[in-house]
Amino acid sequence: MAEAQARQNMLTKPQGSLGRLEELAIQLAGIQGKLIPQIRHKAIITMASDHGVVAEGVSAFPQEVTIQMVYNFLRGGAGINVVARQVGARIIVVDMGVAAELEPNPQLLSRKVAFGTQNMSLGPAMTKEQAVKAMETGIEVVASEVARGLDIVGTGDMGIGNTTASSAICAVMTGKPVAEVTGRGTGIADKQLTHKVEVVSRALAVNHPDPKQPLDVLVKVGGFEIGGLVGVMLAAAAHRIPVVIDGFISGAAALIATALSPRLKDFLISAHVSAEAGHQLLLNYLGLRPLLNLEMRLGEGTGAALGIFLAEAAARIMAEMSTFGEAGVSERNEPQS
Amino acid sequence: MAEAQARQNMLTKPQGSLGRLEELAIQLAGIQGKLIPQIRHKAIITMASDHGVVAEGVSAFPQEVTIQMVYNFLRGGAGINVVARQVGARIIVVDMGVAAELEPNPQLLSRKVAFGTQNMSLGPAMTKEQAVKAMETGIEVVASEVARGLDIVGTGDMGIGNTTASSAICAVMTGKPVAEVTGRGTGIADKQLTHKVEVVSRALAVNHPDPKQPLDVLVKVGGFEIGGLVGVMLAAAAHRIPVVIDGFISGAAALIATALSPRLKDFLISAHVSAEAGHQLLLNYLGLRPLLNLEMRLGEGTGAALGIFLAEAAARIMAEMSTFGEAGVSERNEPQS
Repeated sequence: MAEAQARQNMLTKPQGSLGRLEELAIQLAGIQGKLIPQIRHKAIITMASDHGVVAEGVSAFPQEVTIQMVYNFLRGGAGINVVARQVGARIIVVDMGVAAELEPNPQLLSRKVAFGTQNMSLGPAMTKEQAVKAMETGIEVVASEVARGLDIVGTGDMGIGNTTASSAICAVMTGKPVAEVTGRGTGIADKQLTHKVEVVSRALAVNHPDPKQPLDVLVKVGGFEIGGLVGVMLAAAAHRIPVVIDGFISGAAALIATALSPRLKDFLISAHVSAEAGHQLLLNYLGLRPLLNLEMRLGEGTGAALGIFLAEAAARIMAEMSTFGEAGVSERNEPQS
Repeated sequence: MAEAQARQNMLTKPQGSLGRLEELAIQLAGIQGKLIPQIRHKAIITMASDHGVVAEGVSAFPQEVTIQMVYNFLRGGAGINVVARQVGARIIVVDMGVAAELEPNPQLLSRKVAFGTQNMSLGPAMTKEQAVKAMETGIEVVASEVARGLDIVGTGDMGIGNTTASSAICAVMTGKPVAEVTGRGTGIADKQLTHKVEVVSRALAVNHPDPKQPLDVLVKVGGFEIGGLVGVMLAAAAHRIPVVIDGFISGAAALIATALSPRLKDFLISAHVSAEAGHQLLLNYLGLRPLLNLEMRLGEGTGAALGIFLAEAAARIMAEMSTFGEAGVSERNEPQS
């Protein structure tokens, strides 16, 4: 990273004038262990699952939308498809636990842990075995993507009810009041938001998840797609692949993943701060600065795809900009002159 | 724009969940007069010129860097070349008034108004005829790009000393104190910054530019590339082409251009807020919200190129995302349920 910083200072621009793109290039160099990082093979892993807690009426959309959106991903008509096409990233859609049988599709990885989680407001969302299986699935998906060639990975999610699980995780892991980390998700009104806060509070009261045991938190108030993303993050870092995290759900996964392995943090790039209440607080807790603030709150990996574009820009700057010497450009006057 | 908003609400995502990309798509639809805006032909117009005021010692880099960087643009080794290649934008490099003869190059538009401006701390930077010629050149460049096919244009600049001219313009047009709108440019230290503030103040005291006469401001404390960019902005809007403005220098041009034609503002997209002191204040004055804050301060059009990427994303979302009906995705529950 010191060598990468030195190279940045040789490129034909005032030192530091590309701001966060310079920092990003240096981080990428450190992660990949290359002076000139390479961002050619790009992938978004979008994990889908259902949540038993939707029985409590926490979402503005019916549960069937999870399935319908998976089909939308597979046909290429969702937001993530559009942005991923633009940035040249492939999308890996993983059924981690959608609450229905899905039609087989060559573009879909069927890795169903169960038909949705249990209702966390009544008891644990999943068993310990299921949580481990979800994480192992994330690890396996990354391994097979690495085999195809992978320079950077973005995380994405789909699951009606998953902001509710993420709020519960966020409250436990950060110690903040539930009301501060619970937002409108797909767009609930004030009254339903109050109800959602009550449901999250009940889930915590019933389950007593222990923030010192991140796996316990995943078991009690997590989701299969969240567990899968925990595995994706840990595996990517193990392969020295930068991980661009999306919004609030990916952030909840990052809270668990970094608690399991604090050094993971150096491998994470926060693409954007979501409009979902609690996300900025979550990023502050993780010590991550988002690259973008476009007031997005769609999930799916849409923010991560935009972050991958910026990472590629940072890497290309390192690779393609001329140095002062190469271009015959005069360096700055002596500071004292 | 109302039709574009209605279409946004039919796309398979919670309403408003793509945040500023939705706003941007609606703005683009309004500018282009098309329900589905199209961002295919993209161009960055990077205008270069020199400034007589550099004789006062206001920059960290010597004046010859303007010429050297023009050659760097033409060889493809500068920051703007890298980012423009990534986003698929062509670059038009225009010599508006570099203080030396440049070698002929098929990639360079030679439109030299003069060999640099006069030293504005001693008198007017240019004549009225020169200011008009600079603006007409911007108009002409846009017209010929429109003839080649142009859906969006980004503004860029190169010119040692041009943050000094821009600070003077910004102080006059916004009425803010010189010290609030004068920054470190390419990276001057505290002592030189104090001197730069004095030089800008002297230029204003000597010339008395009248903020009610924007052309008078350009004449007295402007630059040829700034005048050129004023013409680019006005001409693009006249052709109903969205203009993505870069950093502080483009912002100074926008102050003059919007004072000449207030309705221009609807055609401007602020790509980013620069790390240069005064830029946020300038954008506030214009009522523009930047899309990005990456702490960049390179100029050349680098921020504009990133903004063009976001505009393209916004347009693609309108064109390529499925509607709820097309995808068979359930719409939200009734708000009261």
